[in-house]
Amino acid sequence: MVNEPLTADAVLSECAHDLADAAAAAVLPYFRVPLAVDNKAGGRNFDPVTAADRAAEESISALLAERFPDHGMLGEEFGARKPEARYQWVVDPIDGTRAFISGSPLWGTLIGLKDAGRPHLGVMDQPFTGERFWSDGTQSFGRWPGAAAHAIRTRPCARLSDATLMTTDPGLFDKKSERPAFDRIRKAARMTRLGGDCYSYCLLASGFVDVVIEVGLKSYDVLALIPIVEHAGGRFTTWEGGSAAEGGRIVASGDPQVHEAVLEILAGNLAGKK
Amino acid sequence: MVNEPLTADAVLSECAHDLADAAAAAVLPYFRVPLAVDNKAGGRNFDPVTAADRAAEESISALLAERFPDHGMLGEEFGARKPEARYQWVVDPIDGTRAFISGSPLWGTLIGLKDAGRPHLGVMDQPFTGERFWSDGTQSFGRWPGAAAHAIRTRPCARLSDATLMTTDPGLFDKKSERPAFDRIRKAARMTRLGGDCYSYCLLASGFVDVVIEVGLKSYDVLALIPIVEHAGGRFTTWEGGSAAEGGRIVASGDPQVHEAVLEILAGNLAGKK
Repeated sequence: MVNEPLTADAVLSECAHDLADAAAAAVLPYFRVPLAVDNKAGGRNFDPVTAADRAAEESISALLAERFPDHGMLGEEFGARKPEARYQWVVDPIDGTRAFISGSPLWGTLIGLKDAGRPHLGVMDQPFTGERFWSDGTQSFGRWPGAAAHAIRTRPCARLSDATLMTTDPGLFDKKSERPAFDRIRKAARMTRLGGDCYSYCLLASGFVDVVIEVGLKSYDVLALIPIVEHAGGRFTTWEGGSAAEGGRIVASGDPQVHEAVLEILAGNLAGKK
Repeated sequence: MVNEPLTADAVLSECAHDLADAAAAAVLPYFRVPLAVDNKAGGRNFDPVTAADRAAEESISALLAERFPDHGMLGEEFGARKPEARYQWVVDPIDGTRAFISGSPLWGTLIGLKDAGRPHLGVMDQPFTGERFWSDGTQSFGRWPGAAAHAIRTRPCARLSDATLMTTDPGLFDKKSERPAFDRIRKAARMTRLGGDCYSYCLLASGFVDVVIEVGLKSYDVLALIPIVEHAGGRFTTWEGGSAAEGGRIVASGDPQVHEAVLEILAGNLAGKK
């Protein structure tokens, strides 16, 4: 290994880890301390944006400009830089801001890389618990307290009746066009856990959860997670079975068979509305 | 401090910490490993009971028999021992079994002590993340990664419109008699986070969450948490405002004012059904 020249992927992957480290250093000082919360949307649509978000995105942006000045970057706070570049880093310093400001550890820093428009590799980092999940573009890995870095795989779960289902909040589904489909799947599943944001997808990639269904996601919410799930053996698509790279309504499954079953229910419900 | 003789409370509190340590050693080897899940209720009412639960309760029971042979103990798995004793240890080795088997860290080991029927002190331990929250019968404390043991306090939050609300799963409320009240409170609150089990109450005691509302709890789900919340400045009652020591329908609040507001909505809703 020592004499093996670094491949482009290895260099990119190393950069993704370094960006996650930089974000962790910027974010952690703000976790579990009293924190003024900005209100991007104003009024009732409470959408927290914290100083931690901005500090992390700034430090990711600075490191990236130094390491790969020709690469593009898309961030939640600062928008797009060099959108014409082949390599696009897609970052969300704190996915799960509401978890973050509630003191819950179910948030993560997402660093994804698109190569010519396609999700290529990604890191999800949880610096408070010391967990990290990532894909180097070929395989997926995880490390957490008590478990050094190791390859992770989704688990077999062919039938929805055996599946553990996760979603952040059923209240986020549209009552008429989305909630009935979710409720059908929830009823058919063995067990449902709520909360989770990006954390859910990493539990799925590690073989502890079988299906994650969400709506209203942005590209920066999913880009890093797609390679982690897919290179662990899972599937990650829109409700219609297409590319999830732009976000939207998302379903991820550990077992391709259960993914098909879930897509069928989602499609049946949508067709039924026409 | 060194020359101060140990009081009974200090001895009891030390024992609670030792029991939590013993439980952690028994439980952690089962976390994030493929795990056969027993099915206590059978069929559709999936109620996981794991080998970890039993191993922890056995080791707590053994240590307690050695340390305080005259004390009583109430556990989820093994039932009651010496129910006539003045001191009753009430333990739940894994509160949040579903979180546990999904690989989520939002579970905890609960060690509570009743003195002559009243909640006296308690420990909530999360050994995977290295977090512990406890009350010694007078004050409440917390420690977590990056924060050594320190006194914790709830935060001021007089109005429900400023409150962060938590519940494990709105689907657990009875649709007719409980869910409407919860939905009213959710609508009035600033923000809601789902998931959490015992973890939610510790975030409340630490000043990051303002209200937790749940139903169907057992004594061993709450006994350890009541002193932690109350000695941090919060309130912890049934929906009717009475003692929560036996579990049931629970509301905990960081600020007594918001607690009164929530109790009023819960009472109004119940009255409206008569």
